[in-house]
Amino acid sequence: MAGAIRIIGLDPGLRRTGWGIVETLGNSLRFVAAGTVRSDEKQSLATRLCQIHDGLVDVLRLQAPDEAAVEQTFVNKDASATLKLGQARGIAMLVPALAGLAVAEYAPNAVKKAVVGVGHGEKKQIHMMVKVLMPKAVFDSDDAADALAIAICHAHHRQSVPARLAALAASTAT
Amino acid sequence: MAGAIRIIGLDPGLRRTGWGIVETLGNSLRFVAAGTVRSDEKQSLATRLCQIHDGLVDVLRLQAPDEAAVEQTFVNKDASATLKLGQARGIAMLVPALAGLAVAEYAPNAVKKAVVGVGHGEKKQIHMMVKVLMPKAVFDSDDAADALAIAICHAHHRQSVPARLAALAASTAT
Repeated sequence: MAGAIRIIGLDPGLRRTGWGIVETLGNSLRFVAAGTVRSDEKQSLATRLCQIHDGLVDVLRLQAPDEAAVEQTFVNKDASATLKLGQARGIAMLVPALAGLAVAEYAPNAVKKAVVGVGHGEKKQIHMMVKVLMPKAVFDSDDAADALAIAICHAHHRQSVPARLAALAASTAT
Repeated sequence: MAGAIRIIGLDPGLRRTGWGIVETLGNSLRFVAAGTVRSDEKQSLATRLCQIHDGLVDVLRLQAPDEAAVEQTFVNKDASATLKLGQARGIAMLVPALAGLAVAEYAPNAVKKAVVGVGHGEKKQIHMMVKVLMPKAVFDSDDAADALAIAICHAHHRQSVPARLAALAASTAT
């Protein structure tokens, strides 16, 4: 779409980092692409961080997004899991920032509210709503679906478009 | 020193990332440089991660180390602090790995043992021993001193040099 803003949403993880790209123009929202960058568990941590970095650099080069958004993750698991997530999240924020993109952060509740219409909701419901909002969306992992939800959330917040989204979500949410 | 191996030790943190460089050849250990990369707390997280990245890229370009070592940090603080540390640590491991350096990880106890001679010891004792092992060492922060200790630990472990270090440490540790 000419004049459209292309947004990349990122759902970071050491094993799998999901990414999803949408275009927004006025009231419209269009699915562009989504996917998953995986790291090889058999490799050293430093190598795995390079794999995430290189994968995201490729995505940014191919998809050329204008803005980025990442979920503000809060993990209640052990410190070791949180540290792993933090390391992956650092890379997921660094790559778009080094490319000159503004990187917005959204609380999980904001992402759910933008997509489902309320500040809570199960994973399944979020993924279903991503398909309702963008019927052409395809994703190869839950992380890619979450990344699309984050991109939708950013599209919602960066301008006050989504009366349409909110209405749609409200009419579909159970 | 011709034929010497130049090692960078890294003590990552979102506010301050310490770095310290030593050269090791046979039984000798030489201080090269140490310093601190700081990020601006007033900036966004993505910008701060870029500042750490850019600072470390500069250090690597100027100092041209051959190998890197990072402490395996375990934080007992809240999840939010652990996530912050993880993000900085991800960058501190990524930068040398992207430059083609092997990045070793050491448990805090291993670092203390290499420098103080026992698997525990206060920060002050570690900093004092860094000065004993390398009298010419200068550092501008505790993080830089810790980074030098990590570099010394790697020099110790990558070859079985430091009978000398261990003897020295044993004679000085209280």
